[in-house]
Amino acid sequence: MSANILLNDTIVALATAQGLSAIAVIRLSGEDAIAITQKVFKGKNLLEQPSHTVHFGLLHDGAKTIDEVLVTIFKAPNSFTKENSTEISCHGSPVIVKEIIKVLLKNGARLAEPGEFTKRAFLHGRFDLAQAEAVADLINAETDNARQAALNQMRGGFSKEISILREELIHFASLIELELDFGEEDVEFAKRDDLKKLIKRIQAYLLPLIQSFDEGNVIKNGVPTVIAGKPNAGKSTLLNTLLNEEKAIVSDIPGTTRDVIEDEMVLGGINFRFIDTAGLRETQDVIEAIGVERTRDRMKKASLIIYLFDLTQTTLAEIINEEEHLASLGIPYIKVGNKVDKADASLVEELKKHDFIFISASHKTNIVELKDKILASFQVKTVKAGDVLVTNLRHYQNLLQTNDALDRVLESMYNGVTGDFLAMDIRQSLHYLGEITGTITTDDLLDNIFSKFCIGK
Amino acid sequence: MSANILLNDTIVALATAQGLSAIAVIRLSGEDAIAITQKVFKGKNLLEQPSHTVHFGLLHDGAKTIDEVLVTIFKAPNSFTKENSTEISCHGSPVIVKEIIKVLLKNGARLAEPGEFTKRAFLHGRFDLAQAEAVADLINAETDNARQAALNQMRGGFSKEISILREELIHFASLIELELDFGEEDVEFAKRDDLKKLIKRIQAYLLPLIQSFDEGNVIKNGVPTVIAGKPNAGKSTLLNTLLNEEKAIVSDIPGTTRDVIEDEMVLGGINFRFIDTAGLRETQDVIEAIGVERTRDRMKKASLIIYLFDLTQTTLAEIINEEEHLASLGIPYIKVGNKVDKADASLVEELKKHDFIFISASHKTNIVELKDKILASFQVKTVKAGDVLVTNLRHYQNLLQTNDALDRVLESMYNGVTGDFLAMDIRQSLHYLGEITGTITTDDLLDNIFSKFCIGK
Repeated sequence: MSANILLNDTIVALATAQGLSAIAVIRLSGEDAIAITQKVFKGKNLLEQPSHTVHFGLLHDGAKTIDEVLVTIFKAPNSFTKENSTEISCHGSPVIVKEIIKVLLKNGARLAEPGEFTKRAFLHGRFDLAQAEAVADLINAETDNARQAALNQMRGGFSKEISILREELIHFASLIELELDFGEEDVEFAKRDDLKKLIKRIQAYLLPLIQSFDEGNVIKNGVPTVIAGKPNAGKSTLLNTLLNEEKAIVSDIPGTTRDVIEDEMVLGGINFRFIDTAGLRETQDVIEAIGVERTRDRMKKASLIIYLFDLTQTTLAEIINEEEHLASLGIPYIKVGNKVDKADASLVEELKKHDFIFISASHKTNIVELKDKILASFQVKTVKAGDVLVTNLRHYQNLLQTNDALDRVLESMYNGVTGDFLAMDIRQSLHYLGEITGTITTDDLLDNIFSKFCIGK
Repeated sequence: MSANILLNDTIVALATAQGLSAIAVIRLSGEDAIAITQKVFKGKNLLEQPSHTVHFGLLHDGAKTIDEVLVTIFKAPNSFTKENSTEISCHGSPVIVKEIIKVLLKNGARLAEPGEFTKRAFLHGRFDLAQAEAVADLINAETDNARQAALNQMRGGFSKEISILREELIHFASLIELELDFGEEDVEFAKRDDLKKLIKRIQAYLLPLIQSFDEGNVIKNGVPTVIAGKPNAGKSTLLNTLLNEEKAIVSDIPGTTRDVIEDEMVLGGINFRFIDTAGLRETQDVIEAIGVERTRDRMKKASLIIYLFDLTQTTLAEIINEEEHLASLGIPYIKVGNKVDKADASLVEELKKHDFIFISASHKTNIVELKDKILASFQVKTVKAGDVLVTNLRHYQNLLQTNDALDRVLESMYNGVTGDFLAMDIRQSLHYLGEITGTITTDDLLDNIFSKFCIGK
């Protein structure tokens, strides 16, 4: 358990997004959260109010009234962090937020580190580490599928099952270590057959999780997609057509539109992120230019290539030649014949045999069909409540390491190694499993995880 | 009183700023606010909970759980709108916010219009119109002075005093109208001397308010400032030096920095907004070019001109010539000699007699002195709690109109006009006074005011 933060001080941060708005919420957590809030609050005595109640009053800095506010009180352990907490709901002005945070700092609070509220919730045992990480995933979810996957993980996911299996494994490790105490005597407290069965059971649980990562990764991070093709094949036009159509389709609830990330498109619950291929675009012949380091890197990062052929500028021979290059990349690709309205009919007829899709990017012809084809290459199920899916790279790596370590235990038993070596292999598995849920952790690991959170969470 | 909105339906909107954040708050108001929230909430029965309490639970859309949330309940009339209200605090993800608003719409809420929460608060008598307008000013305040001025207005300002004076004036109007009922008889229920005294008293209250507008306007809207001068005089360099220094000085509390508006600088609690003078800059000789329509418009909008002379390129004769043009504009200006480090010493010596300030924009020489000079041209006091200051153009205009109408009443009395004309003049004054506080209002006026609010307020 980490000890690098003082859990007895009180932290403060803006919890809502920055910007002008009706209200903003400033959050405090720590032993003195309510007492510090009381120092700058004119209204009822907050220290005498019950948990989970809301109180109107004035927030002041000495003689200066900063704002009319509502203060919500949460008493330990009945708060997100399990510490005393308050939420100050003020008018949504950056000037007011700044003044309020300033006066709270002056009265004994300190600014929260990124993710510190969630870190404290974890350190106080509100949830395990995998669940804490899911809080960030939940906030960053860009599609409803990603939201559901993160919520499932936050609400339990594989955490409980892994804890139980780990406890059982600890039991065996203890028995084997007990055998070691008996030294030369040939005792066997830990029945090897039962251990084998347990390991198989653990692996039977881990494997589907490991296998779920590919899908989970697509759900969480989207599909990096490249639109490639020779100059003037219509790449930009196609990108704009795809993006603009989706923007128009998305029925925006006023006030909830998130900042448009220009090069993203959500199709069938999957986020397709278009990678900037400026380098590619400037090159005379994209496929022939993959020798260029930078271009190759971009292509390698892609999980899908939409390759655009200008049907009015390309011969069949050239197309076949280009496709050979494409195929050699080993990345899923979709062949698109653009400017079909101006194309030679016999060429189109010939290409129909080669799994082409024909569009006109500028006339928006067959764009729906293209989208279906894009989506078909990454069909993922709709995530439902309770579905357990690994979306986190760290968890995936730990699960793989656990599985390998368990393989080594089995192998050791098969090879009849001595109890002390067996115990070491089991301890290694326990370590990896413990890191997933945060039973075993280091300051570095925690810092690494929580520093990626936003401030206020 | 307006009747163009149905006050019995329930409205919903995101109340916090858009974007990724720890939490976001969705607000409902209306008779069914708690009932609609209950329909999508799994946890305690919200309908049975007391006002001003907070409840943890799951927000769901049928079988789908959208998020873990905290719901705060406010029961009519103890809410901002004086209606039943709830605030749903969810994880700060635009995807989650959208899903929650969608399910609330599906269950009978409708999207709030901009400012509709505040409009409802006004229509239910929480505050008068001038106070409602101050809510928007409070949110939009860009300096601590502007915040304080808006807060003072929101918390009462001139509203109460104007209401009382208006009541007294109504009393006189009624008496005079009563006289009219007696027709030919020579009765005088309204003592003319008392009426004169009342009008003088009202005007004595109004005049300082009217006079406060210039300062109030500077506090609320800042000072539109133009940096002018010939090409290559160093205008851009000076602007960057001024802005960058202020940016560095502003001690930013992480998480509260507002989006940097490139061309603003807060000095001594006043916001100096630099007007884009691209048109000016491209012209060969700025002062001679003020004939150009666009340039002239920009100059006219300025409340302050910082005029930059390149000391290495300009003769004394030219400078004197340019200053004549400057003075003819009738706008406060500051004469700045730039590149003083390379300037001819005798020129500098001569210009010292002409109230020049000498700087080097690129070497940041004398920038503090320049700032002092800028600030000195718009010295405003620090606004304190209780200070009443007119910052709103609509109020200012209404106050002026009221004052003029009262002048006409006095004039009418002096001229001994008949009671019916006197009554009309008084009614006109009452109309203007009533519009300030919203006692008298129209749908158009309300729409015009509240449509400028953000959604969720």
